[in-house]
Amino acid sequence: MADENIITIYNTNTISTDSNHNPFATKLRQAQHLRGGAIFEVTNLNQAKLAQQAGASAIVVTDPQTHGGGVTRMPDPSVVKEIKRGVSIPVMAKARVGHFVEAQILEAVGVDYVDESEVMSLADDQHHINKHKFGVPFVCGSNGLGEALRRVREGAALIRTEGYGAAGSGNIAATVKSVRSVMGDIRILTNMDNDEVFTYAKKIQAPYDLVAQTKQLGRIPVVHFAAGGIVTPADAALMMQLGCDGVFIGSEIFESPNPYKRVQAMVQAVMNYTDPRALVDLCYGLDEAMAGLNLSEDLNLNEDQIESSGN
Amino acid sequence: MADENIITIYNTNTISTDSNHNPFATKLRQAQHLRGGAIFEVTNLNQAKLAQQAGASAIVVTDPQTHGGGVTRMPDPSVVKEIKRGVSIPVMAKARVGHFVEAQILEAVGVDYVDESEVMSLADDQHHINKHKFGVPFVCGSNGLGEALRRVREGAALIRTEGYGAAGSGNIAATVKSVRSVMGDIRILTNMDNDEVFTYAKKIQAPYDLVAQTKQLGRIPVVHFAAGGIVTPADAALMMQLGCDGVFIGSEIFESPNPYKRVQAMVQAVMNYTDPRALVDLCYGLDEAMAGLNLSEDLNLNEDQIESSGN
Repeated sequence: MADENIITIYNTNTISTDSNHNPFATKLRQAQHLRGGAIFEVTNLNQAKLAQQAGASAIVVTDPQTHGGGVTRMPDPSVVKEIKRGVSIPVMAKARVGHFVEAQILEAVGVDYVDESEVMSLADDQHHINKHKFGVPFVCGSNGLGEALRRVREGAALIRTEGYGAAGSGNIAATVKSVRSVMGDIRILTNMDNDEVFTYAKKIQAPYDLVAQTKQLGRIPVVHFAAGGIVTPADAALMMQLGCDGVFIGSEIFESPNPYKRVQAMVQAVMNYTDPRALVDLCYGLDEAMAGLNLSEDLNLNEDQIESSGN
Repeated sequence: MADENIITIYNTNTISTDSNHNPFATKLRQAQHLRGGAIFEVTNLNQAKLAQQAGASAIVVTDPQTHGGGVTRMPDPSVVKEIKRGVSIPVMAKARVGHFVEAQILEAVGVDYVDESEVMSLADDQHHINKHKFGVPFVCGSNGLGEALRRVREGAALIRTEGYGAAGSGNIAATVKSVRSVMGDIRILTNMDNDEVFTYAKKIQAPYDLVAQTKQLGRIPVVHFAAGGIVTPADAALMMQLGCDGVFIGSEIFESPNPYKRVQAMVQAVMNYTDPRALVDLCYGLDEAMAGLNLSEDLNLNEDQIESSGN
């Protein structure tokens, strides 16, 4: 109905996005191609090529510093460029929250998606990037329904529900908690009286129209991934069964003894997440790798301690 | 731009209002006719006729109990009907906040506007009426920008900024505070960077699109009145100079010795609010009336004390 747009007679223009060359609907359609896939965090070209060969649906280039403590920033543009030339799957790259110039640089470099990542140091603790200003689609993190819908309103085409603090820890509990919270809130919303949605939108501080649409659809109105502590094929399948469209896998996976096999197992787990027999086979040969990851978990815990004292 | 509406590709329907027979834009256009006028609270047909003769642009039928303490409800439908038949100006009637059945009854009686009034007892302390379900336009109270825009999103066609607790007190300070707060927030918003509006909308818990539109327009996107403690022509002109589109005047004005003259003076003050010479004349002959109102102020203070102990 046209009437919904005309909320005033002073001015009949609806609010438009700033990016005319790639409207939001197109970005959303673009992001749809990532559904049912696993996206891997990489720090160099070798990892990127390995991920592509093993079946990754996309990769995210990240600062090698990310889990090493200290301030983390967007990756070096030369590395991003090299990776972009070296692989054919979509290449994402991380920018700091609110750092719209890092995002401009990454867009200029030619990435397929900018990842405005909460895992890195914040550049702005109040405001996120106005993603409508960009032609490139954005990925944004979130740990609740209200936050997810606020990011969508700012122009995010893909939401990544994360357990904050779970990145690099190998501990999936925080991520499960966030994903269950989002899915549970959507179930509450779906069964809510229409008249109560106004107050609910106020409560979760999200735009009413997106809340109403989430209720109508029974899901977040954009592609919805999970991330944080997803290190085994079973972890990946768990996220899919909880209702996510796909998963992000941290770069620590490349530290395992047989990273190719492990990446492949993760990709297969996302594709066959409802088939426990297939999952058995996928977990089977990974004993060694698992041991390696347990080691790296301890390592990461130490790194976390450094981080928490350093930041 | 059509693109703004398509926030998902799962479903391209925009959210529609439930009332097809009188869309929101039409209600807003209807409410525009009230701009630059004074609306008077009345409790019976005599007051209604007097207000009409003296130039009121509309009247609001209210429960005579309203300033008497105890639970206050919508006025008796027979009184509303009688008044509706007896005058030709628009007739509003008050329903309790969230009491959508009172609103249904008033719509069936044939009122021109339903006033979902904060001044009466609340029927629902969580949810307001979903005003999109009604064919009749609604007036809603508010004491801040966020609240006003939430009411607009629920379907209010006219916002009345009030100083809560100021009704019937003859004390304009609370109302001035609320009006200045709304106007001040709009000035801040108007000068804000576009990228910061998302966070601002979160902060005031109002729908982003309405906040963005308020910024664009430099005003609340619907008709905006003031109410509460407006008892002299100078009070009415003050509200107009602060930027309101009109004023609501409480029914205590009919207790003054010469209510006709007083009502007329208020109407004239709203029409000539920028002309201090005209205002002098309007205030001139009201000495006696003012004394009467001072008396009634004391009276109302006592009533307030009863109210605060009773509710």
